[in-house]
Amino acid sequence: MNASGKEIPALGEFGLIKRITRRAIVCPERVVKGIGDDAAVFHPPHDQPMLLTTDLLVEQIHFRREAISGKRLGFKSLAVNLSDIAAMGGAPLDAFVSIAIPADCPLAYIDAVYAGLRELADQFGVNILGGDTTGSKKDLIINIAVTGTVDPDHLLLRDGARPGDLVYVTGFVGDSRAGLQVILEKLELSDTALVKLYDRHCKPLPHIEEGRFLARSTAVTAAIDVSDGVASDLGHIISRSGCGAVLDTRQLPISSELKQFGERFSVNAVDFALNGGEDYVLLCTVKAEMAAGLEAAFLSRFGHSLYKIGAITSSGYLEAVDVTGQRRAISSKGWDHFGKGN
Amino acid sequence: MNASGKEIPALGEFGLIKRITRRAIVCPERVVKGIGDDAAVFHPPHDQPMLLTTDLLVEQIHFRREAISGKRLGFKSLAVNLSDIAAMGGAPLDAFVSIAIPADCPLAYIDAVYAGLRELADQFGVNILGGDTTGSKKDLIINIAVTGTVDPDHLLLRDGARPGDLVYVTGFVGDSRAGLQVILEKLELSDTALVKLYDRHCKPLPHIEEGRFLARSTAVTAAIDVSDGVASDLGHIISRSGCGAVLDTRQLPISSELKQFGERFSVNAVDFALNGGEDYVLLCTVKAEMAAGLEAAFLSRFGHSLYKIGAITSSGYLEAVDVTGQRRAISSKGWDHFGKGN
Repeated sequence: MNASGKEIPALGEFGLIKRITRRAIVCPERVVKGIGDDAAVFHPPHDQPMLLTTDLLVEQIHFRREAISGKRLGFKSLAVNLSDIAAMGGAPLDAFVSIAIPADCPLAYIDAVYAGLRELADQFGVNILGGDTTGSKKDLIINIAVTGTVDPDHLLLRDGARPGDLVYVTGFVGDSRAGLQVILEKLELSDTALVKLYDRHCKPLPHIEEGRFLARSTAVTAAIDVSDGVASDLGHIISRSGCGAVLDTRQLPISSELKQFGERFSVNAVDFALNGGEDYVLLCTVKAEMAAGLEAAFLSRFGHSLYKIGAITSSGYLEAVDVTGQRRAISSKGWDHFGKGN
Repeated sequence: MNASGKEIPALGEFGLIKRITRRAIVCPERVVKGIGDDAAVFHPPHDQPMLLTTDLLVEQIHFRREAISGKRLGFKSLAVNLSDIAAMGGAPLDAFVSIAIPADCPLAYIDAVYAGLRELADQFGVNILGGDTTGSKKDLIINIAVTGTVDPDHLLLRDGARPGDLVYVTGFVGDSRAGLQVILEKLELSDTALVKLYDRHCKPLPHIEEGRFLARSTAVTAAIDVSDGVASDLGHIISRSGCGAVLDTRQLPISSELKQFGERFSVNAVDFALNGGEDYVLLCTVKAEMAAGLEAAFLSRFGHSLYKIGAITSSGYLEAVDVTGQRRAISSKGWDHFGKGN
């Protein structure tokens, strides 16, 4: 990051586009035309619905350039979109990357953003098929749109939860919030536990395989990815499904790193797990009679548990059982990007 | 714009999403799930390639909020994307709108952005099928991705131009640059000519029908929409096609409003037409032997000429014939968003 920020104006918009186009296509068979024309041209999947999701990341709101490497930022920008595809039970296809670059941003940082993007894209066979490059006065801005495909018989939506269903998550929650704390408090990455939490915030791995597995199981009635926080995202499911839920906070899967972090820095690990957000694991509701079979199959397939954290009720609101075993209504806080609850 | 900027935080992200979702679907038959889940779900076209284009508009770079109404900004944000679909010979399908809203932006302005968007979307049967809403520290940011479909036998690309082809545009060029001048110089919209130029900048009507007509003609070898400027965009075509071109600046179609504007404000209308950009008409190259037939058919279909402005050569560079009849090489300037040529 010692390089001057004058390289991009010198390279020019079209020089930059040429740079971005390198190694952009990993699955050429569905591509008619990638980057370089007015629009990308591609063959959509035969006889299957398509998915499209898009996420806008703005400097100073979603990230601080000085606190995240370009590579991690690129990785994360794509990961949050792939996580949305995962939450539908889908498989990702192509990514379309819009970027607005301020004059003070070194070319090496932008190269690293695309390197991070490609690292994750390669892993899931995702092409970078188009986008837009432009300038920005002050903040780096990245918008990615990702297409996907899904088996129409195995589509996971938010609105299918029914009273009696059980609530699960596919991985640890709260780690990402601890990783954010590492950034906010400028903590030194002095041990592997802190590095792991930091990377869980900056390089979340989307649960694509988990999503497809859950979708094919026919046991799952609703799903969402944990971006706003467990309470908030379960809140979206009960709001869409017209039901209520009770979360047992004692059952939230908390990593040993987060437990250590909580003790060391006197933060409430359960609160991080419940309200932290950006975990990008999947939260799903499961028919009670199929739950045991699904738990066993998930464990066998992924080598760790599908973690049960609660149940769907008919109350119409969200409740939580706290560490003392007390059950009470809670608000679904989490991240609202316009200030309520932040 | 007298309203306070505190309405959006009070409404919250999810309240805003509910507002945006109103009247978003105009063509429900291809939609499985629109706004409100982790991703949109839709049926792609049968047996036809799909198109996807995306454009990122950033305050202070692409627009000034105080100089453009929310309605015009919404209209233009979608128009620039539809124009890319037009340049491929395609028909638009669905739009995905990401927006980052600063705290000082009144809800009425955002409502107007979506009203402008819907005005144009309704006109072309485009659904608003998804997107992202978030906050921004200072600048309003809009990214729109638009899908489309195209007949594979009638796909217009940039790379098909061949020496001997003739170069055409589908409408007046330079008006938008004069409209930008109206904004930059804060000129009063004192007569209908100034209003017309201002609207050509703020509410460009994408040439979807013209694009489809040109694509079906089989006479067109390459096409692009005029966003960077006639010289710059023709430069993209010759660069992609590996040829050269000569533009006759005396043939550039200049509106009576732009002529008046040039005289009144002592600006060079021909320079605006050649390098202005953001006209969002189509520029295309046509097989010479089919040109007369295409001209007649275009005139009959659209009630005005397809304007011949030059020819493709084998030189490998761009030349222009100036008003005195002199022919010389020119650089393809136009808009480079990182400062070269601006």
